[in-house]
Amino acid sequence: MKTRDFLAAGFVVVMGLFASSGLQAAESAGTDLLQQARQIFKALPQDMGTPENPLPPARVELGRMLFFETRVSIDGTVGCVKCHQPFLYGTDGLPKAIGVKDRVGAHNAPTILNAAVQMAAHWTGNRKDVEDQAMQALIGPGAYGNPSYDAAMARINAIPGYRAMFEKAFPNEKDPVTPANWGKAIGAYERTLVSRSRFDAYLAGDAKVLTTNEQSGLRKFIGTGCIACHNGVGIGGGMYQKFGVVEEYWNATASKTHDEGRFGVTKQPSDMYVFKVSSLRNVARTPPYFHDGSVASLPEAVKVMARVQLGKTLPDADTDDIVAFLNSLTGTLPKEFATVPELPPAAFQ
Amino acid sequence: MKTRDFLAAGFVVVMGLFASSGLQAAESAGTDLLQQARQIFKALPQDMGTPENPLPPARVELGRMLFFETRVSIDGTVGCVKCHQPFLYGTDGLPKAIGVKDRVGAHNAPTILNAAVQMAAHWTGNRKDVEDQAMQALIGPGAYGNPSYDAAMARINAIPGYRAMFEKAFPNEKDPVTPANWGKAIGAYERTLVSRSRFDAYLAGDAKVLTTNEQSGLRKFIGTGCIACHNGVGIGGGMYQKFGVVEEYWNATASKTHDEGRFGVTKQPSDMYVFKVSSLRNVARTPPYFHDGSVASLPEAVKVMARVQLGKTLPDADTDDIVAFLNSLTGTLPKEFATVPELPPAAFQ
Repeated sequence: MKTRDFLAAGFVVVMGLFASSGLQAAESAGTDLLQQARQIFKALPQDMGTPENPLPPARVELGRMLFFETRVSIDGTVGCVKCHQPFLYGTDGLPKAIGVKDRVGAHNAPTILNAAVQMAAHWTGNRKDVEDQAMQALIGPGAYGNPSYDAAMARINAIPGYRAMFEKAFPNEKDPVTPANWGKAIGAYERTLVSRSRFDAYLAGDAKVLTTNEQSGLRKFIGTGCIACHNGVGIGGGMYQKFGVVEEYWNATASKTHDEGRFGVTKQPSDMYVFKVSSLRNVARTPPYFHDGSVASLPEAVKVMARVQLGKTLPDADTDDIVAFLNSLTGTLPKEFATVPELPPAAFQ
Repeated sequence: MKTRDFLAAGFVVVMGLFASSGLQAAESAGTDLLQQARQIFKALPQDMGTPENPLPPARVELGRMLFFETRVSIDGTVGCVKCHQPFLYGTDGLPKAIGVKDRVGAHNAPTILNAAVQMAAHWTGNRKDVEDQAMQALIGPGAYGNPSYDAAMARINAIPGYRAMFEKAFPNEKDPVTPANWGKAIGAYERTLVSRSRFDAYLAGDAKVLTTNEQSGLRKFIGTGCIACHNGVGIGGGMYQKFGVVEEYWNATASKTHDEGRFGVTKQPSDMYVFKVSSLRNVARTPPYFHDGSVASLPEAVKVMARVQLGKTLPDADTDDIVAFLNSLTGTLPKEFATVPELPPAAFQ
């Protein structure tokens, strides 16, 4: 399905909802809103494993250690954790990620929490999934900076404790210390990082878990049209979209450059300024916003989206309500993320 | 007390022990060894608070958040946590610390665990205590990189959640967001980071908690003379010493430069190549070793010390035993360190 088709499909869903609920929505009791929300959104699964990416405990535990492992980068400062800090809800708080040697990355580092429910990793579809992202980071000049996968594997092998853990995580493999298994292990860990919010409890049927303000915000989030793109289990993360449908985005943000987005990957003119729609889960805890971190506050980000995507000037009261709803998407910090593992020492001691 | 006096005092202690125990030590039962150990070392206290540096809970909790806070550095990448990662036992695993803008620091970052029991922070006595270290890091070009304390305070004040926490941590102060209070709060947290080891249980009277190898190592650690400097509660950290008493240290290490050590602070010729004696607590989990991280493995570090400090070529069997003893100094990772706090968002959301 192409970008434009996604957009079209989204709008059909929205329009269908409007047609069926119409004015009633405004008057409906809380349960009607809940019914409507359940058609648009989905609660988080227990974990984000798939048949291709299963979660055997030994693999998850290895992945957890590798996630926090900084010694595999060329200057010893970058691990997954560098851009996905537990204390900043799985982000680095920076406009754009910073890798080895103070190299500024292309985009803002999104939170790793719930990341695996999305259709792809990164902003432009150049990383298939969390496994692919973790693997390619090893040789990314602005990430771990290794000149080759072999160089990266040599760094892992230099830490004596890891080999046995790889063997346990990938039994029946002769030489399990491979870039693909690095990705699979970290991906397995990341697929356990489910950060469930009050909104999930709401979708599960507890209508009263959202305040009146938050319910009003949810109603406006639906009514304004945000759900055309921000829907599904990720409340986003399920499609590519042009940033700046109505108006060029850099008119409304503090963006310093005109990022070509997915065009850089596909070279298709229709992909110019197209990015993956952000998942809004934990959005209140993960500023700054957009692919370039060009907007610092959530109310401002909501206004920018209404303006450049939908051509609407959102009244402050609507912005406030929508922000209240977005705050209900703040989830818990998973214990396996908030508590760091002890890593093996660098050399035989 | 001057460096040389410290050294002299240390040797008097050692010689006294030898005189009183002599050959008997080799034949003595485990309890005699324990008695001897108790004269030289001390178990860790419950916490490392002092009358000048008390630990009110609100201050400790604020300090814990500030410890993990990276947004007060000029590029948003450096917090105390940058060089003192929980998953690397309070170190960064690097030969020398790396601060903002990829700037390599002067020295290896020692573990923050048990750090406050030491006589001073840092390697050369240019930081009075953990509070002073935390404060000065704000404006260190190779640390947080702020051009001034005012600039640093502006960054804290830009995160709305902190003011109320400072007010709670420092009641009765009109404007509690100050560099000194930043240092006091982080210091208070660090003074709770007690990492107790099996050796503490041993000193408390449980002689059997050390294996035969470890007890043999302890005996050799005493007999070889290591305890002249590595004694007290920190098993080091209590005095300054020349690195390279018998032989220039750079002959035995991979050191690339001849670091002047404390001479750089005092300009006293007697302080040339003088450094604070490292605490050996958690030493097996905190490579690489020495002020410049120039030795990667613990057995090698033990051999270097015997050679350049004591003029001894340590047999492999003795090295192995001493390393076994040093492994018994590995403590637990405090819960308040292994579990990271959730930090306040960067802007009103």
